[in-house]
Amino acid sequence: MNFLEERIVKEGSLKAGNILKVDCFLNHLVDADFSIRIVQEILSRYSGVSFTKVLTIEASGIALACLAAMQLHVPMLFAKKSASLNVDGDVCSSRCYSYTHKTENAVFVSAKYIQPHDKVLVIDDFLANGEALRALTDIVRQAGAQVAGCGIAIEKGFQGGGDMLRSRGYRVESVAIIDEMDADRHMIRFRGDNNTYSIGNRQK
Amino acid sequence: MNFLEERIVKEGSLKAGNILKVDCFLNHLVDADFSIRIVQEILSRYSGVSFTKVLTIEASGIALACLAAMQLHVPMLFAKKSASLNVDGDVCSSRCYSYTHKTENAVFVSAKYIQPHDKVLVIDDFLANGEALRALTDIVRQAGAQVAGCGIAIEKGFQGGGDMLRSRGYRVESVAIIDEMDADRHMIRFRGDNNTYSIGNRQK
Repeated sequence: MNFLEERIVKEGSLKAGNILKVDCFLNHLVDADFSIRIVQEILSRYSGVSFTKVLTIEASGIALACLAAMQLHVPMLFAKKSASLNVDGDVCSSRCYSYTHKTENAVFVSAKYIQPHDKVLVIDDFLANGEALRALTDIVRQAGAQVAGCGIAIEKGFQGGGDMLRSRGYRVESVAIIDEMDADRHMIRFRGDNNTYSIGNRQK
Repeated sequence: MNFLEERIVKEGSLKAGNILKVDCFLNHLVDADFSIRIVQEILSRYSGVSFTKVLTIEASGIALACLAAMQLHVPMLFAKKSASLNVDGDVCSSRCYSYTHKTENAVFVSAKYIQPHDKVLVIDDFLANGEALRALTDIVRQAGAQVAGCGIAIEKGFQGGGDMLRSRGYRVESVAIIDEMDADRHMIRFRGDNNTYSIGNRQK
């Protein structure tokens, strides 16, 4: 197990409905020092690749994306899910279904903030069915820019979104890929490791 | 003018309805290196104050809060605006009206992530009428923890939220406080500076 997989096993928990709860360090309470390790691992895999912008989607992707942008010294852009008085003018938009909130959202960015010359690193905390990442790559395509890579903390590999994106030619680097998990048996298995691990159910 | 006021004048724009648009560097496209300067300025004003946690509200506060947590080596917690499968159990919640989205939202955190011993730094990108900050301080109070300080990038002083919070005994440190702005005349004035400055209207 790598450092993220270890922490998932140690502090995460499973709930019915393919829910992995890691809100104690990743997407509600955020361990910033640990998030930097995640970002550094992603960026080390993209050694030699140049990026001009980091793109994510609100809300929980913002922490990792901001840290990645800081490391790369490039701007971070986050796609919004709801109309705002702060966004006007031309937008690039796509639609994505949120399995977490059970709603379909339009997601959009101001068109002027992605230019055709941009080489974009798309960042998110989770990748499951790939809806959010598909919407973000669609936005980059609309802008005529290039997705130079995707970086994810936790990919739920068994939900297929990551492999769907890879099959379309995108490079997707996920620090932890879960190929199997079972809430009833408190069991998790990561890609590249035939062992299964017991994961707590401490967070009721 | 300090570095943030200079950037507001140089790159911001005003719109009818007391809207200051700084989405080109602060709350849509985010200049991460510049955001670190904002965070460092806030933390320098709290020199000698110890914090155990950084609290903000999704979405645009997360970038600054994460960078502050990184500098302080403490966790960052962001309050959520909508129910999620990822948050369950006891919550601390409050309500706040968003003038940006023209909706009233319940905002909440998992109760287990703020403890009575916590000394909380509340961070947000904007402070106007103070609704979001009031809700966050209310959440901290419910948890029995202490608001050890509030740090804001841009306070719209003429909307009164900051001074309302100060009158209640909270320490609020804002890097830029706008005491007057006029979209028709493209004019802005900052607290502590009797000059008025011309602010562009380049972002249509």
